Amino acid sequence: MSAHIIDGKAFAAKVREKVATHVARLKADHGITPGLAVIQVGEDPASEVYVRNKGLQTVAAGMNSFEHKLPADTPVEDLYALIERLNADAAVHGILCQFPVPAHMSEEEVVARIDPAKDVDGLHILNAGRLASGQAAMAPCTPLGCLMMLREYHGSLSGMNAVVVGRSNLVGKPMAQLLLRDSCTVTIAHSRTRDLPGVVRGADIVVAAVGRPQMIPGDWIKPGATVIDVGINRIDKPEGGTRLVGDVEFASAVQVAGVITPVPGGVGPMTIACLLANTVTACCRANGLPEPEGLTA
Amino acid sequence: MSAHIIDGKAFAAKVREKVATHVARLKADHGITPGLAVIQVGEDPASEVYVRNKGLQTVAAGMNSFEHKLPADTPVEDLYALIERLNADAAVHGILCQFPVPAHMSEEEVVARIDPAKDVDGLHILNAGRLASGQAAMAPCTPLGCLMMLREYHGSLSGMNAVVVGRSNLVGKPMAQLLLRDSCTVTIAHSRTRDLPGVVRGADIVVAAVGRPQMIPGDWIKPGATVIDVGINRIDKPEGGTRLVGDVEFASAVQVAGVITPVPGGVGPMTIACLLANTVTACCRANGLPEPEGLTA
Ligand SMILES: NC(=O)c1ccc[n+]([C@@H]2O[C@H](COP(=O)([O-])OP(=O)(O)OC[C@H]3O[C@@H](n4cnc5c(N)ncnc54)[C@H](OP(=O)(O)O)[C@@H]3O)[C@@H](O)[C@H]2O)c1
Ligand SMILES: NC(=O)c1ccc[n+]([C@@H]2O[C@H](COP(=O)([O-])OP(=O)(O)OC[C@H]3O[C@@H](n4cnc5c(N)ncnc54)[C@H](OP(=O)(O)O)[C@@H]3O)[C@@H](O)[C@H]2O)c1
Repeated sequence: MSAHIIDGKAFAAKVREKVATHVARLKADHGITPGLAVIQVGEDPASEVYVRNKGLQTVAAGMNSFEHKLPADTPVEDLYALIERLNADAAVHGILCQFPVPAHMSEEEVVARIDPAKDVDGLHILNAGRLASGQAAMAPCTPLGCLMMLREYHGSLSGMNAVVVGRSNLVGKPMAQLLLRDSCTVTIAHSRTRDLPGVVRGADIVVAAVGRPQMIPGDWIKPGATVIDVGINRIDKPEGGTRLVGDVEFASAVQVAGVITPVPGGVGPMTIACLLANTVTACCRANGLPEPEGLTA
Repeated sequence: MSAHIIDGKAFAAKVREKVATHVARLKADHGITPGLAVIQVGEDPASEVYVRNKGLQTVAAGMNSFEHKLPADTPVEDLYALIERLNADAAVHGILCQFPVPAHMSEEEVVARIDPAKDVDGLHILNAGRLASGQAAMAPCTPLGCLMMLREYHGSLSGMNAVVVGRSNLVGKPMAQLLLRDSCTVTIAHSRTRDLPGVVRGADIVVAAVGRPQMIPGDWIKPGATVIDVGINRIDKPEGGTRLVGDVEFASAVQVAGVITPVPGGVGPMTIACLLANTVTACCRANGLPEPEGLTA
């Protein structure tokens, strides 16, 4: 028996469609167009690609995209002043600053300046606190995408044993909070975990967010379990060149799991889709409208 | 073999002694006296007792205690104005509002008004966020007390399997964050957990914070495990009258565990001691001094 393989590209397209439907309704019923502002400081080539994609997908969903490109030597006060303006701008519902920023800026400080209500990356400490306290938060995009996939395939997650491998502020910890909110019994594992194979074998749901190529083999997976592979690792191919692999050894895990996400084409495409989802959510909250169904945690 | 029984009263006394030593040093070296302000609204009789005890222990540790008693019909704006004054008062390093407050006030709103740096109860959303993000936070007192006990008996907790039963914002969730910070592999269980006996049996450390009398029997406990019982439940005695019991069935668990806290006399006395500890920590941070060793998370 081979696992059902989640098509993340198709899934992300469905999420973007839902976003577009909500956006159309916001325009038609309320004359509101959600707006996402993306700030890029300096000229990191990978960032260029991401920022362009975010802009294209924002516009494709019917929303306004505001791109702010600042030179690498921008004084940090100018960046803060821009964030202040965007915080105050009623046409802007979501703000994100593409990381990395140049070395004279602190990512933590930059995030702290963004209005938590517009923090569509879900990185502000206040959003971490709201997430941890069961209040309406902006959830980080990648874990939110994983949650959407899990809900789609399982309906209710209540009572399932979920193991999250990795405890970063960006992925592992918010993922654990989201699973706990959905009433999984949640275990958080990390580099100090003693018997990782044993811990993973107990899981109905495994979320791998480690950053180590193919470290979780199929024989750690409980038969029939759901495996969400967040890892994105570039490795050398024997025949030369490189390829992307996840934190899970796909070839063996697909034989054991019930459902699995591939890398690439699994979780990856969900991240930008969830950014758009968060922007619509922020827009609805800012206008006192009900949250968009199916797009929030 | 019977478990080592932690004497929470003696342990709390040791923590208060450490606090007093730090306070004496702050006075001698810097001319600073930490101050704790406690607000009580209305006349709940249990609150009276707590507030009096807090005041007495604060003074006994050499700190300033400021008690503010407001009548039950105090307009909420007056309470907020008092909190504002205390936030601005440099002699006040910790502020707590004793709960419950009268029905015309919202506990969440009240906590939100307290300067997070002075929130020695560790209930502000920003402190939950800092705790979740690995930043210097004010940790809630009861979980902090449990952590201190665990560190005292184990030294490093790194790699231990910890199971927290209960996921409240007050105890279960911050406890899980503290154990994760100390590099336990952490499992959070709750009312939807399917096989609670099985989950608890995997634990080197069990923290029970449920509020159900004696629900965890000894045969759920892994031999030699450490059991921290946060529960405080009043039950009827067969011979008439009532007594306090924990969430753990002490008589059977003490036969299996390696270390265990009794109820009463275990975790309970640690809570006020940790309130004093948090006040000293807040005072040190406010004055740019190093944090008091052994009193923080
Ligand atoms: N799909 C997407 O859109 C997306 C988004 C974000 C990230 N990612 C990918 O997801 C992966 C994780 O990202 P991240 O930002 O969370 O990484 P990170 O900040 O480096 O965190 C990695 C976590 O893995 C743990 N870990 C390291 N070695 C381990 C081992 N041998 N066994 C168990 N745990 C181990 C670490 O534990 P300690 O805390 O003990 O060190 C840490 O908590 C990366 O591959 C990244 O590229 C993908
Ligand atoms: N020693 C101290 O100073 C101190 C301080 C604070 C609290 N306490 C005591 O600690 C206990 C817990 O307090 P709390 O404020 O955290 O209580 P709470 O807010 O009522 O939370 C109780 C938690 O236990 C879970 N639970 C309920 N029934 C369960 C079951 N059958 N199996 C597994 N989990 C179950 C609940 O799960 P769901 O979320 O799924 O409902 C909830 O997460 C109480 O006895 C309280 O008096 C003592």
